[in-house]
Amino acid sequence: MDLTELRTANPEHWAKAAAIRALTLDAVAAANSGHSGMPMGMADVATVLFEKHLKFDASAPKWPDRDRFILSAGHGSMLIYSLLHLCGDAQVTLDQIKNFRQMGALTAGHPENFLLDAVETTTGPLGQGLANAVGFAMAEEMQRAQYGRKIVDHYTYVMAGDGCLMEGISQEAMGLAGRHSLGKLILFWDNNNITIDGTVELSDRTNQVQRFKASGWQVIEIDGHDPVAIDEAITAAKKSKKPSMIACKTHIALGHAAQDTSKGHGALTDADQMKAAKEAYGWTTGPFEVPADIKSQWEAIGSRGAADRAEWEGRFAEVSKQKQDRFNRAYALDTPNKLSAAVKALKKQVSEDQPKVATRKASEMALAVINPIMPETVGGSADLTGSNLTKTGDMGVFDTDNRKGRFVYWGIREHGMAAAMNGMALHGGIRPYSGTFFCFTDYARPSMRLAALSKIPSVFVMTHDSIGVGEDGPTHQPVEHLAICRATPNTYVFRPADAVETAESWEIALSAKETPSVLSLTRQGLPTVRTEHKLSNLTAKGAYVLADAEAKRQVILIATGSEVAIALEAKAKLEAEGIGTRVVSMPCMELFAAQDEAYRRKVLPAGPVRVGIEAAVRAGGWDKWLMGERGQDKKAAFVGMDSFGASAPAGELYEKFGITADATVAKVKDLLG
Amino acid sequence: MDLTELRTANPEHWAKAAAIRALTLDAVAAANSGHSGMPMGMADVATVLFEKHLKFDASAPKWPDRDRFILSAGHGSMLIYSLLHLCGDAQVTLDQIKNFRQMGALTAGHPENFLLDAVETTTGPLGQGLANAVGFAMAEEMQRAQYGRKIVDHYTYVMAGDGCLMEGISQEAMGLAGRHSLGKLILFWDNNNITIDGTVELSDRTNQVQRFKASGWQVIEIDGHDPVAIDEAITAAKKSKKPSMIACKTHIALGHAAQDTSKGHGALTDADQMKAAKEAYGWTTGPFEVPADIKSQWEAIGSRGAADRAEWEGRFAEVSKQKQDRFNRAYALDTPNKLSAAVKALKKQVSEDQPKVATRKASEMALAVINPIMPETVGGSADLTGSNLTKTGDMGVFDTDNRKGRFVYWGIREHGMAAAMNGMALHGGIRPYSGTFFCFTDYARPSMRLAALSKIPSVFVMTHDSIGVGEDGPTHQPVEHLAICRATPNTYVFRPADAVETAESWEIALSAKETPSVLSLTRQGLPTVRTEHKLSNLTAKGAYVLADAEAKRQVILIATGSEVAIALEAKAKLEAEGIGTRVVSMPCMELFAAQDEAYRRKVLPAGPVRVGIEAAVRAGGWDKWLMGERGQDKKAAFVGMDSFGASAPAGELYEKFGITADATVAKVKDLLG
Repeated sequence: MDLTELRTANPEHWAKAAAIRALTLDAVAAANSGHSGMPMGMADVATVLFEKHLKFDASAPKWPDRDRFILSAGHGSMLIYSLLHLCGDAQVTLDQIKNFRQMGALTAGHPENFLLDAVETTTGPLGQGLANAVGFAMAEEMQRAQYGRKIVDHYTYVMAGDGCLMEGISQEAMGLAGRHSLGKLILFWDNNNITIDGTVELSDRTNQVQRFKASGWQVIEIDGHDPVAIDEAITAAKKSKKPSMIACKTHIALGHAAQDTSKGHGALTDADQMKAAKEAYGWTTGPFEVPADIKSQWEAIGSRGAADRAEWEGRFAEVSKQKQDRFNRAYALDTPNKLSAAVKALKKQVSEDQPKVATRKASEMALAVINPIMPETVGGSADLTGSNLTKTGDMGVFDTDNRKGRFVYWGIREHGMAAAMNGMALHGGIRPYSGTFFCFTDYARPSMRLAALSKIPSVFVMTHDSIGVGEDGPTHQPVEHLAICRATPNTYVFRPADAVETAESWEIALSAKETPSVLSLTRQGLPTVRTEHKLSNLTAKGAYVLADAEAKRQVILIATGSEVAIALEAKAKLEAEGIGTRVVSMPCMELFAAQDEAYRRKVLPAGPVRVGIEAAVRAGGWDKWLMGERGQDKKAAFVGMDSFGASAPAGELYEKFGITADATVAKVKDLLG
Repeated sequence: MDLTELRTANPEHWAKAAAIRALTLDAVAAANSGHSGMPMGMADVATVLFEKHLKFDASAPKWPDRDRFILSAGHGSMLIYSLLHLCGDAQVTLDQIKNFRQMGALTAGHPENFLLDAVETTTGPLGQGLANAVGFAMAEEMQRAQYGRKIVDHYTYVMAGDGCLMEGISQEAMGLAGRHSLGKLILFWDNNNITIDGTVELSDRTNQVQRFKASGWQVIEIDGHDPVAIDEAITAAKKSKKPSMIACKTHIALGHAAQDTSKGHGALTDADQMKAAKEAYGWTTGPFEVPADIKSQWEAIGSRGAADRAEWEGRFAEVSKQKQDRFNRAYALDTPNKLSAAVKALKKQVSEDQPKVATRKASEMALAVINPIMPETVGGSADLTGSNLTKTGDMGVFDTDNRKGRFVYWGIREHGMAAAMNGMALHGGIRPYSGTFFCFTDYARPSMRLAALSKIPSVFVMTHDSIGVGEDGPTHQPVEHLAICRATPNTYVFRPADAVETAESWEIALSAKETPSVLSLTRQGLPTVRTEHKLSNLTAKGAYVLADAEAKRQVILIATGSEVAIALEAKAKLEAEGIGTRVVSMPCMELFAAQDEAYRRKVLPAGPVRVGIEAAVRAGGWDKWLMGERGQDKKAAFVGMDSFGASAPAGELYEKFGITADATVAKVKDLLG
């Protein structure tokens, strides 16, 4: 392709964009790995966006009222690294660019929000950034309504490729954005017609323009290499009341021998071809060298927003101290002072009242106390509001005419919900929690993993957490989902046994700053087992002695959630036969693992036989507690599931699958031999 | 709503549809659980479809050339149970209807393909049936091309609700169907504007008609209670070269007090309201009673296809014996006689050649041998063909002008791919396998669970299975995915160590009839560890002694996949110090667990210390083998991951995370004390 026309039509623009392309080629070649083509294709769009529209200050990447820029096509990470380096971001030095994808570098293969302040969200798994962006834009709407335009007023820009749009999550995200008229959300589609396997037509012939319109979006179609068209499109998009999709017709790996081919998607490292591409760009400096005039033009772009920021700081200083504190506290993810006392009061009350309620109901009781004192919480449900019980009376419903509403009807979109929750949390100022059935963790799984990986304290409220679901049958009965969540690093999995532990779990989940939580809650009613009020949060220990042996201690029963009551029942039967039995409630294995050895040994001393009870598969982390990590504790058994469930009333299923006090007693006796 | 007009306009039709509605009300009331509204809303569509179009024979529900009917909105299971009972299906007796959702009944809460022959696929998790249906329709196209119209020529009908269409998987399925012009796929959209939380507008305002058109579908909009319009729409849809979506405007819970409300979605059990609804229907018989004339009309519908079937059997008898055998063998999921010999020959060759190849490459080598002798295999990749290495030269590419093609470019649609694979397998005659990166198991997870739950032998080829991925970083590096797959009941998880074990794994995966397989394969090259040819399939034992101790046995190292070579290296170091070390390769934990106690004890005798080595989290099923299920084997350790990975060259990551021979030796020495 002859680039002469592009170069000469807008030479100043061209040189700035060429800097992105050249840095990308150099960094990928040095790493001998990565993706050259996307940054080379989208450099023009990015340059115009950063130069003329994006409100940001490279010296303060976390300034709250910045526009957000999200690279959903995360494999094109050199686009964002080039931009940040050129703009003068303090973290992305030239050394970082040279060490792209190397051990310890901040310039990882895909952009990681926990490595670079200016990376709004970790991307790479396709479609996630787009769905995160919907959460960012919702958060902006909510906070603009709450704090006013002077404090919150920014756009969310997201770049997505064909892969993002083919993933199903894109439709969930598009539907949400369209439904809620998120006019400040602007998507650039890198319409280059190339995927890894070949042209897009190989696998897809969707009319994306028509599809976005069907989902309630404005669509603007442009040549993605024409800076004037790009500028006009962004200007028009910013005025729209609907979310905007700017379809940018681009050439992947523009100007390279691999342009417009699937080869162009990957690492372009051939020295001669690189040389030819740079010549076509009119780029004459050596590897990693950016001419000083171009660098200074970029640095001017990077500092363009400093004045905006100063003005914003002035405006922020003028709002009431109370509003400032609330704003700052929420962005810092600090809990309000009142939280601890409120949770204690609730615990005291339920330990006295001893209600027999499902833990999903107990969760609603906790939220009813918490939501009024934590205005930063935003709740929701994937079309199971009356089942998940995540909506409290004071929240209001988020809608086009009620941006202050704090409850979101997500629709039947578990995946989009989880990704948007992550986006809300990353935006700042909001603590999102939302629910679905625990089984449908499966649908939300890719975003739940990303919450853990990228240290986002989203709270996933997963009700109907076992065969206790009953008649809906095995498709709706989780058996492996506790194992899945527990196998995922940096995730708290809470399975509270009653209303007290549920309140304690909520307190921990809403205090976490870098760890997502999964609340595994029952459909069915459970007795209160914590009938003696304790001020301290015992769930924070992960596991604790709920009831100690009366006769000489021969047995430790360890149980979670709905099975703690079964353990207590088994204990009564065993004690009646003179077999001393301790019952340990273990609402959070991760927190128990984090305790010191002395505490763990105090709760689980060597000697007694141990039986774990949980209506789920044993693979859910049990062996460690039943046998000790080095196998030093002998003789253990497990009462739980080793198959999928079945359709029948819940009580009958517990009998059928042998998750009962009698079955527990039998296993204990077998072990005691 | 006054039903008089509907009743009087088409009284014969009305009575048949009313039978479905009445049975639904009665069964849900008896169970005091279930979903009344959907069957009541879609009874007219179903009646017309079954009466006038669906090619089926209730006495032979598995007749291969039947039309397929899939209820994607599986919560409306009483629709399918009513239809089957009324048509005279031998399994769905009146007792089954009366025992809806009870222990042991075939009429489970959601339709289960493993309980009822006439249920084509298990549904309930929304969107799955729709995406399965795409696989069914692809399978029909493929086999029609292969066997000719006289043997294979049928439609796939699927009913979906708003929930199915909101789930992201629907877009993936729609895109595939549109891309491949699956004209014999006909979708009924139960357009009742109600979800559990309220009206659809609460969460969605998508223009579904426009969206389907954008995805390459024909759309027909009708009144879903008008039998003439329904008939005409189906007739038109059958003629279309595009897949058809019939948008059926319906009233959920038609004729009931809860009509057109979200309450109508659930269990309608109020006796007075039931009585009023039945009166509105003109239904005068008692609970579960269907007037004889109506029942006999339905039975005539049920036997309508018997003649079609007889004709088909005549045509089938006329094709060559060879074709008949191939057809019957593929439908029976039997392997060809040649398979075993071919795999043995490949094993012999690679154990002699000892190539250093990635197991994804070894997988390609196995497929190159297998695909030519198993014409029923259909391969594919979610836009990673050159990385997953699932395409062999002889397959051809499935396309509108090559329906015989056996390779599918699925695009960036892991979820839709997995669901369509399940559909293909359930259709019969096809063994689907397809690949993506192991990390993106996350996207495919809901369908992978359903493969296991509903006993579908799909083969998921998951490459790039550890931090061995290298520079792409933690988003692309699985650490918990082996744990996830192993925690799922009825799933074979193979992690072969070299080309020999890879070939063995493929043989088992393609011989399975009721169990899906996950092949966890490396990106990076591995040495051949099975250098001595054995005829028997050692992988089928799950684990075996790869190299026994030379000095006195003090240690057993257990490893999988890429870490087996590390175990061998550690063994060499230990033996050099006189520490006798056995190396056990464990390519499939599930198959090892299925061996008898004597074999397991032979491989893992008590006494020596044990160290497991796997570049993944310990929660992936390890403790059972390290310590014994009852904790009777002491002293164990694990070399693996306990966090997410990082972006850097693969070799450096293995060092960083301590998955090395030296780290293994150190753990052994610590245990030996």
